[in-house]
Amino acid sequence: MAGKPKKEKQEGITVKKLENFSEWYTQIITKTEFVDYTMVSGGLAFRPDGYYAWEAVQRATDALFKDTGIINVYFPMLIPEKLLNKEKEHVEGFNPEVAWVTHTGDSKLDERLAVRPTSETIMYDSYSKWVRSWRDLPMRFNQWNSVIRWEFKHPTPLLRSREFLWNEGHTVFATREDAEAERDVILRIYELITRDYLAIAGVTGKKTDKEKFAGAEASYSIEHLLPDGLVVQGPAFHFDGQRFAKAFDITFIDKDEERKYVYQNTFAISTRNLGVMIATHGDDKGLVIPPRIARIQIVIIPIYNNENRNSVMAEAEKIRAKLNSKFRVFLDDNDAYSPGWKFNEWELKGVPLRIEIGEKELKSGEVVAVRRDTGDKTRIKLDRLEAGMGELLNEIHNNLYASAKKHLEANTHHAATFDELKRILKERGGIVQAHWCGNVQCEDKVKELTGAKISNMPFDKQGHGSDGKCVYCGNASKYVANFAKSY
Amino acid sequence: MAGKPKKEKQEGITVKKLENFSEWYTQIITKTEFVDYTMVSGGLAFRPDGYYAWEAVQRATDALFKDTGIINVYFPMLIPEKLLNKEKEHVEGFNPEVAWVTHTGDSKLDERLAVRPTSETIMYDSYSKWVRSWRDLPMRFNQWNSVIRWEFKHPTPLLRSREFLWNEGHTVFATREDAEAERDVILRIYELITRDYLAIAGVTGKKTDKEKFAGAEASYSIEHLLPDGLVVQGPAFHFDGQRFAKAFDITFIDKDEERKYVYQNTFAISTRNLGVMIATHGDDKGLVIPPRIARIQIVIIPIYNNENRNSVMAEAEKIRAKLNSKFRVFLDDNDAYSPGWKFNEWELKGVPLRIEIGEKELKSGEVVAVRRDTGDKTRIKLDRLEAGMGELLNEIHNNLYASAKKHLEANTHHAATFDELKRILKERGGIVQAHWCGNVQCEDKVKELTGAKISNMPFDKQGHGSDGKCVYCGNASKYVANFAKSY
Repeated sequence: MAGKPKKEKQEGITVKKLENFSEWYTQIITKTEFVDYTMVSGGLAFRPDGYYAWEAVQRATDALFKDTGIINVYFPMLIPEKLLNKEKEHVEGFNPEVAWVTHTGDSKLDERLAVRPTSETIMYDSYSKWVRSWRDLPMRFNQWNSVIRWEFKHPTPLLRSREFLWNEGHTVFATREDAEAERDVILRIYELITRDYLAIAGVTGKKTDKEKFAGAEASYSIEHLLPDGLVVQGPAFHFDGQRFAKAFDITFIDKDEERKYVYQNTFAISTRNLGVMIATHGDDKGLVIPPRIARIQIVIIPIYNNENRNSVMAEAEKIRAKLNSKFRVFLDDNDAYSPGWKFNEWELKGVPLRIEIGEKELKSGEVVAVRRDTGDKTRIKLDRLEAGMGELLNEIHNNLYASAKKHLEANTHHAATFDELKRILKERGGIVQAHWCGNVQCEDKVKELTGAKISNMPFDKQGHGSDGKCVYCGNASKYVANFAKSY
Repeated sequence: MAGKPKKEKQEGITVKKLENFSEWYTQIITKTEFVDYTMVSGGLAFRPDGYYAWEAVQRATDALFKDTGIINVYFPMLIPEKLLNKEKEHVEGFNPEVAWVTHTGDSKLDERLAVRPTSETIMYDSYSKWVRSWRDLPMRFNQWNSVIRWEFKHPTPLLRSREFLWNEGHTVFATREDAEAERDVILRIYELITRDYLAIAGVTGKKTDKEKFAGAEASYSIEHLLPDGLVVQGPAFHFDGQRFAKAFDITFIDKDEERKYVYQNTFAISTRNLGVMIATHGDDKGLVIPPRIARIQIVIIPIYNNENRNSVMAEAEKIRAKLNSKFRVFLDDNDAYSPGWKFNEWELKGVPLRIEIGEKELKSGEVVAVRRDTGDKTRIKLDRLEAGMGELLNEIHNNLYASAKKHLEANTHHAATFDELKRILKERGGIVQAHWCGNVQCEDKVKELTGAKISNMPFDKQGHGSDGKCVYCGNASKYVANFAKSY
């Protein structure tokens, strides 16, 4: 066999993010080696950088969960159909999306098995055996797994996948108050993770009854705004009340010796948030990965000619070794490509920080550090290399988050009238905050006439209901709602 | 609603492990809260202790993998049928066990999707795109996930499950030598994990062609011996040669500018090893969990009456707080049960070390530490509590491993003749080492006449082939083989 390399020339991103977001996103997926399409529509391969980012999110979230007393468990991925059917709203919500196992080998199964779209039903059947007394409560379990939902006709990697990785927290309490008190604890954890790791901004609030989770009594979410002006739901928290408890007979003997139904919550963050991260930070050169979730935080690129190759390479290796204990660092010592080629390649892949070292740096005892987010160059003395790198990585993180926040704020508008709401949605997109009476008819009408749903009702804008009138019907307002077109 | 607690009396293990191993194992599963049956036959719920043990194994294995340069990735759980069909031996091996997704919602799929029984086929389709040049090699990826195999008609929790959690390493090399050199690195990691975490003994060796992995050129395994004399396969390593490379067209341009097929390996450790751990260490009182994988390493049981309750409890809490930074410790301050009830309960659950603290200990400035493995009691002065606990936990680990090793050695026999082989297998069970000519006909005949398979050919017994004659046909021996009945 003889042949040529499959990849000879460098393929960068060829469209502008702001001119054609959809094509830009597709190129990011196919060219940056973060994730990749597979032969399964809606099923992704997470390549090393992509899976590292998810592991970083998972590790940080898991540690915060554990600090609050949450314990990890694992439940089967296949769920018997009769279990799935136990809670009416839940099954109606999920049935159209379920992947059904009907055969094993050549045999037809007596009962179909659902590949888990979510695990309430299989978990709560066990919970009904495990919860006995008030002493067993609260029981706060979580699992990390992957789920299948055949939800989208045209999947988009990460943002609208048919398989995604997530956590699913499933907690059980003796009282409504205890269950409800968990909400802010969990939403605060998700806010920290999105801010301090993914460096993305979001709006925390309550979902409307129409948009809440199938089977929940109330849902809460963090909603993210993408560059194309569409909103996508990030982490979510659902208060289930006693709905599943009654469907699955989860009861306990309380201190007063009465048998009572438990109260339950569920909550999740998924790999969809990696899609939000990519869409938020990426630019016309490629990915920009926030430092705390980057598999490679610093790439070192030696710049040499035939004469000084050995001395430059030796110094580059010394720098690599020095940084290696504190940072995730990679020395690109590939002789086959020019420094310029490498600059482009690592910018495409989104590595947050690049160190350039050549003859000039050898002499001056400095290196050049180039930020991926701004392109700014800094000269750093070798004797404060580690401190300098740490500062730059933090600055990059903070800058990415600040930009994301600024974008969210700049694209959050206010409308007092329905005409205004319509006009802003048409001309500018993004989020439009407006008063709402709480009536589903108005919610439906706005959707019908503008294409915008209520993404959520932001916590920090509530309590002013009586000040205004519903943007659609003009009756007294109950909530300030965020209207937006969404994924 | 009024009612009584669902669980009033204490349910210990009611059969002897050595008298009825199968019933004992079932009681261990249902009574110790390590794992639990679910409504899915062959699908388990991993409860907090069980999942913690798996996380500990996973964390330790993952760290050792990373030290050798292995990188984590993730691939879709659903595999299109046409991909599964690409490697002939592989598909023939797995097809009878595959769970098939045929419908999503109410729609029939155009092509069936397999719930992954293993991920070669979905991964290698991507590998064929990703591997281009010798510079991309070696490419050493791993994923942690769960797989479905409808393999066993009568599943046994952990040991013969239809779903199990595992790692699957899938590595790619430019040369046969590089690929083969990885074998001992990986098997050594698995030996360390089984010895230093699960505290179980095993026999490392090569599988016969008949017993090797479907699609591999050669398979290697660590085989474990259960208390009932049956052998079960633990971690495994498979050298695939170029079989999958040819089926999936995974090629690279080598330094000599020739296009060549890659060489590949795969390797795995699964939750089956938790079953081996349970079966090995458990006793007539319940589970015995090795300290390094125990979610709770030390349970503190205060012994008090109405007068001294507060002072004993305060001291117990002080001890808990003191130990908490170094150990995983739990203070059982439940007033509803007697110390004796608690002793039984925590022994049933297999917590490695118990601390008793009462009036006497308050006065003497000591605690009583009771080992789960031996029942031995030690008095430990409070001023060397942490050191003392660390020593005891290490001693427990070492003792568990030593017992496991002793059991393996005591039940490994040698047979020079077929009559002897038959007699030992019938009378004593366990492993019988004997010479083998390497011919599958002899392997088949022994299986037919004794029920024993060749579990593997232990590395440390090879090189003596020419000394002996095949235990069945009497021709010149090529290998020393381990014959045993197996799960």
